[in-house]
Amino acid sequence: MGIDLKALAASVAGRLDGPGDVMVTGVASVQDAQPGDVTFIAHKRYLSDLARTRASAVILGENVKTSLPAIRVVNPYLAFLKAIEAFARPVAEVFPEGIHPTACIDPSARIEEGVRVGPHVCIDRDCHVGAHTILGAGTVLMRDVRVGSRCLVYPQVTVREDCYIGDRVILHAGVVIGSDGFGFAKGEGIYHKIPQIGHVIIEDDVEIGANSCVDRATTGRTVISAGTKLDNLVQIAHNVSVGRHCVISAQAGVSGSTTVGDDVAIAGQVGVVGHIDIGDRVQIAGKSGVHNSIPAGRQVSGIPARDHRDWRRVIVHIGRLERYAAEIADLKQRLEELEKASRASAAADS
Amino acid sequence: MGIDLKALAASVAGRLDGPGDVMVTGVASVQDAQPGDVTFIAHKRYLSDLARTRASAVILGENVKTSLPAIRVVNPYLAFLKAIEAFARPVAEVFPEGIHPTACIDPSARIEEGVRVGPHVCIDRDCHVGAHTILGAGTVLMRDVRVGSRCLVYPQVTVREDCYIGDRVILHAGVVIGSDGFGFAKGEGIYHKIPQIGHVIIEDDVEIGANSCVDRATTGRTVISAGTKLDNLVQIAHNVSVGRHCVISAQAGVSGSTTVGDDVAIAGQVGVVGHIDIGDRVQIAGKSGVHNSIPAGRQVSGIPARDHRDWRRVIVHIGRLERYAAEIADLKQRLEELEKASRASAAADS
Amino acid sequence: MGIDLKALAASVAGRLDGPGDVMVTGVASVQDAQPGDVTFIAHKRYLSDLARTRASAVILGENVKTSLPAIRVVNPYLAFLKAIEAFARPVAEVFPEGIHPTACIDPSARIEEGVRVGPHVCIDRDCHVGAHTILGAGTVLMRDVRVGSRCLVYPQVTVREDCYIGDRVILHAGVVIGSDGFGFAKGEGIYHKIPQIGHVIIEDDVEIGANSCVDRATTGRTVISAGTKLDNLVQIAHNVSVGRHCVISAQAGVSGSTTVGDDVAIAGQVGVVGHIDIGDRVQIAGKSGVHNSIPAGRQVSGIPARDHRDWRRVIVHIGRLERYAAEIADLKQRLEELEKASRASAAADS
Repeated sequence: MGIDLKALAASVAGRLDGPGDVMVTGVASVQDAQPGDVTFIAHKRYLSDLARTRASAVILGENVKTSLPAIRVVNPYLAFLKAIEAFARPVAEVFPEGIHPTACIDPSARIEEGVRVGPHVCIDRDCHVGAHTILGAGTVLMRDVRVGSRCLVYPQVTVREDCYIGDRVILHAGVVIGSDGFGFAKGEGIYHKIPQIGHVIIEDDVEIGANSCVDRATTGRTVISAGTKLDNLVQIAHNVSVGRHCVISAQAGVSGSTTVGDDVAIAGQVGVVGHIDIGDRVQIAGKSGVHNSIPAGRQVSGIPARDHRDWRRVIVHIGRLERYAAEIADLKQRLEELEKASRASAAADS
Repeated sequence: MGIDLKALAASVAGRLDGPGDVMVTGVASVQDAQPGDVTFIAHKRYLSDLARTRASAVILGENVKTSLPAIRVVNPYLAFLKAIEAFARPVAEVFPEGIHPTACIDPSARIEEGVRVGPHVCIDRDCHVGAHTILGAGTVLMRDVRVGSRCLVYPQVTVREDCYIGDRVILHAGVVIGSDGFGFAKGEGIYHKIPQIGHVIIEDDVEIGANSCVDRATTGRTVISAGTKLDNLVQIAHNVSVGRHCVISAQAGVSGSTTVGDDVAIAGQVGVVGHIDIGDRVQIAGKSGVHNSIPAGRQVSGIPARDHRDWRRVIVHIGRLERYAAEIADLKQRLEELEKASRASAAADS
Repeated sequence: MGIDLKALAASVAGRLDGPGDVMVTGVASVQDAQPGDVTFIAHKRYLSDLARTRASAVILGENVKTSLPAIRVVNPYLAFLKAIEAFARPVAEVFPEGIHPTACIDPSARIEEGVRVGPHVCIDRDCHVGAHTILGAGTVLMRDVRVGSRCLVYPQVTVREDCYIGDRVILHAGVVIGSDGFGFAKGEGIYHKIPQIGHVIIEDDVEIGANSCVDRATTGRTVISAGTKLDNLVQIAHNVSVGRHCVISAQAGVSGSTTVGDDVAIAGQVGVVGHIDIGDRVQIAGKSGVHNSIPAGRQVSGIPARDHRDWRRVIVHIGRLERYAAEIADLKQRLEELEKASRASAAADS
């Protein structure tokens, strides 16, 4: 299960600096590495760790000294990522080929070549599953779902009727796509359900984390655009449109009908209200509460969210409130004394 | 799959203003509408969109001008909701009739007439499923669960033993009802589990969003009362009682033993601590942290939550903190000069 | 299904004070108790409820008067917990013995004695399930998973390949263990997935709440140490290490590579950023946002989190901001008058 250093150097396009026949069997950070691991140094901050590491080899820049067998590269971090790929377990080892006999696939469903279907999967009428897509155990595709090619759908995912998943999409375990939007009309003290007859479009190369939810539109579509990545336990409400190449971290939520631009980064536990526009390249810091539209390129923080630098200043001032209160009290007292003196002086003058 | 305008006008109780044989095949907002869609105008703000819409027909008030075929009504928004219903896919199309042969139903379970059971559903001993209820693929009812009639339970739901679901309840995919409350007694540095022997009661007409959790009571019951709607990823802890006709938005959480009144609205990502009372008709703004009981009818915001108008004023003042700090510094300096002058004048007088 | 008071007194090591043949059939709080229930009084605050309770018996201290049949103990709360255990439904009643015929168990998997496997469970190649462990309906163990003995895994859980679960672990419904960490390298405007080749170790006696997620490490391991308890909808990111005997409440999240010490308490909806260290015995109040490492033993609150007592003072000052603003305005005006007077007096003097 190992790779020799010569082969690893070739696979990360680096220069071998040491014996090529050293076998490495894993990758690890410089602190966690065990004998057999290859590690990396991308920042001089970790040079002291290099002296103590138990790793068998190291990926690093040209001008860093080490007594370990080394692979020299221009960008050690990127080379390390390539090394991780070299050790990643092929998906074919984890998901067996073919269609498990316990899967329920409606005869009307179209399953392209090379699809892998796990135990107890359910593929309902008129679904279409693209070539080489993998459906993990227990996953449910309801009626008229279209999943593209080379997707990886982990166990226990539910995709509701009429939803569309692009190519090379990864859906982690427990994801729910196309659940009803949260829409009710109040009449006579009772909430009447507004039927949610829209659907969801997950474009190519999207990844959605475990137990996250993307609601179907009331009418029309909820969209997660190409290349966007969602972490675990994220909530995307009905009629939201998320642009391309965004990252939305764990436990964040975007409310109904809001538009998120391209290249937006939304950190963990952020909440965004409905019916607003988040511009391209906006960055929203963790735990922020966004109540208003944000122009492109802005960085915001806080509840309610404001410009990030403003927020940092506000935080500093909040930390000084006790001092400000004391200063106000002190000023007040001194002013009263001055006023007394002024009145006394005025009385003396008159 | 279309409806002609004459039929649609009848189904929304409106007056046809144009040709009755125009076929419409869908509903959409005025901005998103495509040819074939019917749209609506409920607010004059959207009148300019009406001129540009691609919709084939429009639902609107009597005195709004349009060149489109129109259905005239008193309340266009409510009529549009009815139109949505006219286009909603009947549930019978999505969930096939009957009991799927892969479902595991214990012989002791009682299944009433018209129940639809999807693939790989599991109904354990002594369960009771009411007439015309639908159980989606992979859903699990553990021992002694009672589900009422005309419920709609989406795939991959778990209802733990001894829990009770009323009539016409909707549980979305991934919902967990009756998981153990989070109860431990610390002794000698170790957390000892307090058995959670209570149960959960979900009353009639409740809807619970995808991947939300309602914990069973330690003893007694956790209750979600009739007509209340929960969004996705909501957490309801053990022994909580939520009143009737409440709405709780996504990613909000209510901690143990707290009582929520009737007609309460809890917005997204709100946290409510345990052992407090939230009065009837209380409204809690998004992301608030509620630490104390709230009397009926109040609107609160913030962390810790306070009266909503107070909170808005506080937010304004927080935004001015930098200015206040500068003013304090300025006052201090000017006061020092006055003090100096006063001391000089006193010295001169003496 | 009842227990007589004599037997119950023995099982909680209490002194019977009343007739031993009174049958009790349940346990409940003093307010909720019905005839047939045993209740308890642990605090004099609830003494007035005792007079009104409908309970048939009460567990309480030696020197509290009551007309009810009583069990006298030193610590009524702990005795009540023991009484709850006496009424808890044995797990053997809820999960039937043996392996359900619809479960898919790879022949290479090793299943020890006394294991209970529910319907539609999936145990993949080379898994190992320890003695007397229970796997609820629909649960999926992917390749090379090791689950210890006497674990209780509720329905619809997913444990990804290569993850390790210790002994006596409880995983509630919908839990996902070993989902990919949220790791991407941005290049040319596109997020490239960093393969997540590490795994997860859940140590002995851990409990994880419904729909919570623990991500696998990028390389190495994500660890939840022995005796730690996680509530529902909690997010633990890749390479996090949580120490022993911690409690993490609902909807809290810990970001990547952060280390949490032993005996830490993290309240609901807390967010902890990545790459920091939370010391032993730290307590983090609900909804806090933790941006920096916290030394052992500290109690913190707020966003950003600071010392809890500081935070409480800050909150008080924030509540007074309107008053401070008014005081500053008042000081300013009075100071201007003094300055005017001072100028007038100086002019008069000259």
